Formats: sequence, C-alpha cells, structure tokens
Amino acid sequence: MALNDVIRVERNEPAIAAVLGILKQRLGERFQTGTAIRQQHAHTTSYIPLQAPDGVAFAEGTEEVRDIVNICATHRVPLIAFGAGTSLEGHVNAPGGGISLDLTRMNKVVAVHADDLDCTVEPGVTRQELNVYLRDTGLFFPIDPGANATLGGMAATRASGTNAVRYGTMRENVLSLTAVMADGSIVTTGKRAKKSSAGYDLTRLLVGSEGTLGIITQLTLKLYGIPQAISGGVCPFPSVESACEAVIATIQMGIPVARIELVNQLQMRALKAYSNLDYPESPCLFVEFHGSEAGVSEQAESFGEIATEFGGGPFLWTKVEEERQKLWKARHDAYWASHALRPGAKGLSTDVCVPISRLAECIAETEADIAEMGLIAPIVGHVGDGNFHVLALMDNDNPAEIALVEKFVERLNLRAIRMDGTCTGEHGIGQGKIGFLNAELGAGVAVMRTIKQTLDPLGILNPGKILPLS
Amino acid sequence: MALNDVIRVERNEPAIAAVLGILKQRLGERFQTGTAIRQQHAHTTSYIPLQAPDGVAFAEGTEEVRDIVNICATHRVPLIAFGAGTSLEGHVNAPGGGISLDLTRMNKVVAVHADDLDCTVEPGVTRQELNVYLRDTGLFFPIDPGANATLGGMAATRASGTNAVRYGTMRENVLSLTAVMADGSIVTTGKRAKKSSAGYDLTRLLVGSEGTLGIITQLTLKLYGIPQAISGGVCPFPSVESACEAVIATIQMGIPVARIELVNQLQMRALKAYSNLDYPESPCLFVEFHGSEAGVSEQAESFGEIATEFGGGPFLWTKVEEERQKLWKARHDAYWASHALRPGAKGLSTDVCVPISRLAECIAETEADIAEMGLIAPIVGHVGDGNFHVLALMDNDNPAEIALVEKFVERLNLRAIRMDGTCTGEHGIGQGKIGFLNAELGAGVAVMRTIKQTLDPLGILNPGKILPLS
Repeated sequence: MALNDVIRVERNEPAIAAVLGILKQRLGERFQTGTAIRQQHAHTTSYIPLQAPDGVAFAEGTEEVRDIVNICATHRVPLIAFGAGTSLEGHVNAPGGGISLDLTRMNKVVAVHADDLDCTVEPGVTRQELNVYLRDTGLFFPIDPGANATLGGMAATRASGTNAVRYGTMRENVLSLTAVMADGSIVTTGKRAKKSSAGYDLTRLLVGSEGTLGIITQLTLKLYGIPQAISGGVCPFPSVESACEAVIATIQMGIPVARIELVNQLQMRALKAYSNLDYPESPCLFVEFHGSEAGVSEQAESFGEIATEFGGGPFLWTKVEEERQKLWKARHDAYWASHALRPGAKGLSTDVCVPISRLAECIAETEADIAEMGLIAPIVGHVGDGNFHVLALMDNDNPAEIALVEKFVERLNLRAIRMDGTCTGEHGIGQGKIGFLNAELGAGVAVMRTIKQTLDPLGILNPGKILPLS
Repeated sequence: MALNDVIRVERNEPAIAAVLGILKQRLGERFQTGTAIRQQHAHTTSYIPLQAPDGVAFAEGTEEVRDIVNICATHRVPLIAFGAGTSLEGHVNAPGGGISLDLTRMNKVVAVHADDLDCTVEPGVTRQELNVYLRDTGLFFPIDPGANATLGGMAATRASGTNAVRYGTMRENVLSLTAVMADGSIVTTGKRAKKSSAGYDLTRLLVGSEGTLGIITQLTLKLYGIPQAISGGVCPFPSVESACEAVIATIQMGIPVARIELVNQLQMRALKAYSNLDYPESPCLFVEFHGSEAGVSEQAESFGEIATEFGGGPFLWTKVEEERQKLWKARHDAYWASHALRPGAKGLSTDVCVPISRLAECIAETEADIAEMGLIAPIVGHVGDGNFHVLALMDNDNPAEIALVEKFVERLNLRAIRMDGTCTGEHGIGQGKIGFLNAELGAGVAVMRTIKQTLDPLGILNPGKILPLS
C-alpha cells in the first residue's frame, strides 16, 4: 500500500497564499511559516512520508479557533489540529497543504470539581500536566497512552493505554466537549451529569474523529481518587498462550486488575540486555492492582494462584512503591530497550486489538510471520483488552525494507480483522490504517462518509484522514 | 407544554393505505391492524396521549426488517421500532400514524463468548431472558432499568438503572450492533474487540438514537462474571444532604459500590406503610457491594464508617442473600408502595441527572416545589450517578392536574439543566422531553438535526421524537 495512492488531496495554491496572508496579518508572531516549524508540525513518528503544512497558527481561545476555521472555510484551505505531535499514523500530515492549528497555548485547567470527580481543561493540557495540577486534590486522570500527549489529541484519537482495562479509554472518560465545527458553530456536546439520554451522543461522535469533524477546544474529563494502595509485580509464563489463559481467568473472576501487560520473549530478551535485570527470558505479565490495602494484597494473591494454575510463576509482587517501580522499570523501558536490538534503526509502532479468546492465536501467528519475514519486532500488549503492539525495527531509508514492513502490517491488520478484531485498538486510522477500514467495517464506512460530508461539506478539516476514497 | 404543539407529523393517508396492503400481503398473520393490538403498540405508560400506529408488523430477521424499511421508504410512511413497550416518554407513539415494527420475535441469543465476556443477541431478547440464558455460564448482564425491557429497546434509549454506578450504562456496554439504516443498508458498527480507534463511533451514535437513525437488529453486549460475594444493606440519614455527602465521600474513596440508591422521606413513609417494615421514616441509602468475600465485607464496613461520619446510621448490612433481599425489598417495592399513597392515581415517572455536588440542592428544591404545588410525588435516586426519579401521582383524566404536573416537570428539567445537568439521565427524550433539548444543548441540536436529515432524509424512522422543530 503506497500511502499517497490511497488519498490524494489537491493543493489549491492561490487559496493557500491568501490564507497565509490573512493569518499572518491577524496573528502576527503567532503565525509561523518557517521550514523547521512546519516540518515539526507534520508527521514524524514513523516511515509515513512527512507532508508539512504551509503555516502554523497558534490559537489562544475558542473564538479565535472559530475565526481561523471560518477563514479556512472561506478559502477552502485544509486545517489540521495539532497537539503534542505524538500520534503514530500520520494524523497531522498535510497531504494537500494548509494550516496546522497548534493548540498547545490553550493549556489552562479551567476547573476542577473534586466532589463530582471531573475537571474541565483546554485541549493543549497534557496528561502529565493535568496530573501535576491535580496532585493536591487526591484525584488523578488515569488514561496513559505512553507519550505525554495533549488531552485534546488523546480525545481526537480515542487514546487509551496500559490501564484502560480498569478505567476505560478516552471514549469512557470524556464527559463532554466543546468543539468548533466546520461551519464555525461552537458546540458543547453535553453537561457535567455522569450520564444522559438526551439525544444523539455527539461527545462520542467527536471522540475518535481525528479532527475531521470539529476542532476540540475544551474537554470535561472524569477523574478518579488516587488509590489508597497499589500492588504490582511480574510473572513469567512458559508461553504466550498460558499467559493469555491466565489473563482470561483473572478477568472472568472479576479481579479488578488496573494494568496487565504482556511482554513477549524477544521483548524480554531486549529488556534483560538493556536493563541488566534478573528476569527469565520467557513471556511475562506485568500486573498492577489498585484498591484498599487489604484489597490489593488479596488481588495479587488471587492472581498468583491463577498464574500457577496455568503453569506460570513465580509471581513477584510488592506494595512498596520503589520496589514496584523497579519491577515495572523493564516495561517502561520497552521502547528504548527494543531499539537496542538494532542500533540505528527506527521503530514502527503498530497496534491491533482482538477478542481476548483469539489473542494467543493472533500473537502466535504474528510471531511466526515476523520470523518468516526476517523482521526484528518485539511485542508488548495491553492484554486485558486484547490489544497489542508490534515495534518493527527498520531502516527508514531503505525502500525494500519499508515495503516489507508495510506488507507485514497489512497481514497483521487483516489477521486481526479476520479474528473479529480491529486494525487499531488505540492509535487511530490517520493515514497509516486508511486502507483497512473498508475491510473492517464495510457498509459502516459509507455512513461515516455521509456524516463527514454533511458536517464538513467543503472538506477543510484534516482532509485525507480516516476515510478511504469510495 | 402541550405535546402535540411541539411536533406535528402529517398523516399521508393514501401512502399509509398502500403500505398496509403490501405488508398484509407479505407478512400475513404477522401483520395486524386490530385496534387493541395497535393501541398496545403505542405509548401507554404516562399521561402523554396515546397515538396508535396504523398497523403492527412482527419481523423475524434483519433482511425482513430491511424489506419493511424499504417499503416504508418507498411510500414515505413512518416506521417505529417496538420492543417491550416500557419506555416512558412517548417513544413508541405514532404521531403521524404508520407502522409499528415489533421486534419481539427476534429473540434469539445468537452467541455467548464466555472467554471474551460478551454475547450477541437479537433485539427482542429481554434482559431477564438473557440472564436466565446465561445462568450456567457464571456470567451476567448487569444493566437493570427496572422494567424487563428488550435489549434492543434499552440500547435505543441508552438505558441504565440501579447499578450503572459500577457497570456503566448501555453506552458503555454495547460493543457493536447491526442496524438497518433508513436507506435499507445493513450496517454492523464494529467488531468484538474490547476497544477500537477505527473511525467514527457509529455504535455510540445509534445507542440512544431512539429508533430515529436506524433499526437495531442485533447487538453484541459486554458480560461480567457473577460476583463471588455480594453484601448489601440500608442506612438512614438525618437529611438528603447528609446522605449525598456520604455518597460523594464513598465514591471519592474509590469504594467500588455496585448500587447506591437514595429513597427520600415521603418514599420511606410509603414503603413502611406498604411493607410494614421496621425502617426509620427518614431518607435512606440502599447500598450493595460486589466482589470477593473479604472485599465486600471491607467495603461495607468502610461505607458504614463514612455514613457515621456524616451523621447517618446504623448501617444494617449482610452477605446472606435472603436477608439482603429482605432489606432491599422495600426499594424494589417503591413503585407499588408509592401508588398506595394515592389509590387510583397513575404515577408519572420522570428523571433528571445532575453533577453529584448539586444533587442535594436539586432534590431539596424539588421537594420544596412538590410541597408548594401540592403534589404527592416521592423520590428515589441512583445517586452514585446524580440521577433521580420523581413519581408524580396524578389523575390522568383531570386536565388541570396534567397541566400542573407538566409545569412541575418543566421546572424540574430546567432546574437540572441550570445545575449543569441533563433533563434525562436514562429515560430518553421521546416526546415528553422534546421541549427541553434546546435549553440543554443549544447549538448541538442543530448538529443532531443535520445528522438526522442526512441519514434519514425522508424522515421515516420514528418521526416526531428527540428533535424539536427548528
């Protein structure tokens, strides 16, 4: 799949020139057209070719976003919302040029309602900034996609991460949001009530829409009490299959595991080499429990018994934070440890998600594929959700290698879909997965296209993303 | 607000006559036009005037639903999906006549995937039928709106109920669904993966759309392990305010309460009179915990301590099922006990939902309003979510009383919206709340209308519901 064959967006040179002039005049220093800054606002996290915007606008408020949307609409110039730039599937590329709308200056925590366990933030606040802000309240925001992404970007890609198994994804944790739609209208999708049956779920329509239906300018998010106690540890298993069986049993028993991460054999080898840790070189589960002092001990013990039942163990766990951090360090180092498997290579991180009953089979087939294709590609997974990542280490300057990895990713996506799963559990479609949406959702794609065309008839919002050409 | 002034849907007599003929020929005995059966398929649960459809079609499969949709589309005749008929806001009325599409013969459990904790069902399966079917698997479906509604209907109205505080609502518990859209296309909105970032969230767009965007013909639902142990009990409080404070503290501490129900003083009086129980006549919380043997004891004890802190107690609780059922019997009898407060009257059940920090204030103002207006109207609430119900006992044959209750409901809805809440936490908009959507969502309503018009341009799917005239 050559990406630029899938979606071509035509450049409208006179219109782009006009908008550059208008925005420069209006925003002054807050509008930039230098090469470095434009490239920094395009896709840089994988082998997907960089397609820089023509200018970068730094917005400071909802009304200003509306004005910029209106300017781009008048001239039919693409507008691409930008947060931290950590998305993985080419979401912020500008295939037809246009304006990158940098929202990082909209970084205020607007309100924290501790009694209601919610807060309202601007889209440029990062998840780490929010948790630092919340530190004295006893509350936290749990969604952790790894990168220190902005909360607006996380909502736009329906992000999740390691503890979605306990706390859900952005889908479950955005109570309401304010967005500027393509026609310039400012819409707030809901109130702060924990649930509502009032009309169509516009919140969920915008969460995961990747900036193609509206620009998120404010979000109200659910918060959680910082758990009284945390236990966590590492448990080796003889095989990925036995580890997956233990995960299924754990979840069926209703043990409220907060994180349960699978690390495959190659990834463990990389971790051992990188961190000089005394782990066995076999698939491992990294597990964490949140709750009361008594609860997290009971849960860890129950998990240990389940692990033994499926041939795993010993399960080393602790409630002491420093020791827990040490045990988990290997998991946190996975990304860098992997790169040491092939110095100089760049890692392509891809993700799929399958029903948990198919997970062992899906990983086994994927490992066989990796071996057969001669790739170096360790696997980590948020296995409580059936979601896993493959990090293919590749030489981005070698077209033959890019083609090989593209083939591998294609086979992986179609495998997941064949197993009743999805081609992306948490990264999103962007440009990179655009060729698989039809295979996954069939007639549903036509409904999505209808919605896109009616809400953004001029096609100005992040064109060339999510929707394949019909 | 006189309902028929809000939304008028014109009858198209020749078209209706044509469709009646076609469906009779096609469906034979599975198409009925008798007065009793037509009235039974219209709204009968409140004072909203009954508007019977012209005929009732009993569909037996997705393809047949598609054919019926196409017939109605060809002739531009309204089609109204019907499940158990337990909705409360006039959802199944036929203001412009047309066809009621009874889905109760589509009542098969298609598949149970125990390892994945999900199942696929037809829309006519009721929640109780599903739980009977699941009995031997150790799994259950938790959403419990009170009535034994069909799962299709529950998805269509985004239903929830007593244990949403722990398990979420239909929004969180539908993994995917199949629907026939207004153009006759059959769309499956997702795979069985627990999470996905693949495109717009069509599942959530259809959940809560009340049959106005598509007809749900199959659903894949999340299941949960039956908890190892359950504890539960009743705790009196000196005031609604102190009870609400205890709820807030309980949730902030992260105690995973499964149900936490508020019953106000008038409702307790009714319960005592009805059940001859030895409860105090003060506001009470009915509480339930799900978990391990040790966990549910610890949680109940922690809750008891919190209750004492806010002036409540004693908290009587037990893990023995029969005793628990007895303690909770009063809550389950609330509906009938309330009717005994005014024999012969009919109860109008309405619902709002506010941020929990505003709940005590909202209930206090509502109780004052009830007193001032001279209504008899007990209150029960799913207070963990900030959701509460008022059951106004009224004489449905007395227009002055209807007007009074309508005024009361209007003030209640606007009060909830003013407190950053919603005019309906779980009942839906239907006809009854249609006058309040603009007050709640403003510009969002225009987005909803755009979506409705593009996905159902002929306006055949449940016209006159959800969306106010512009």
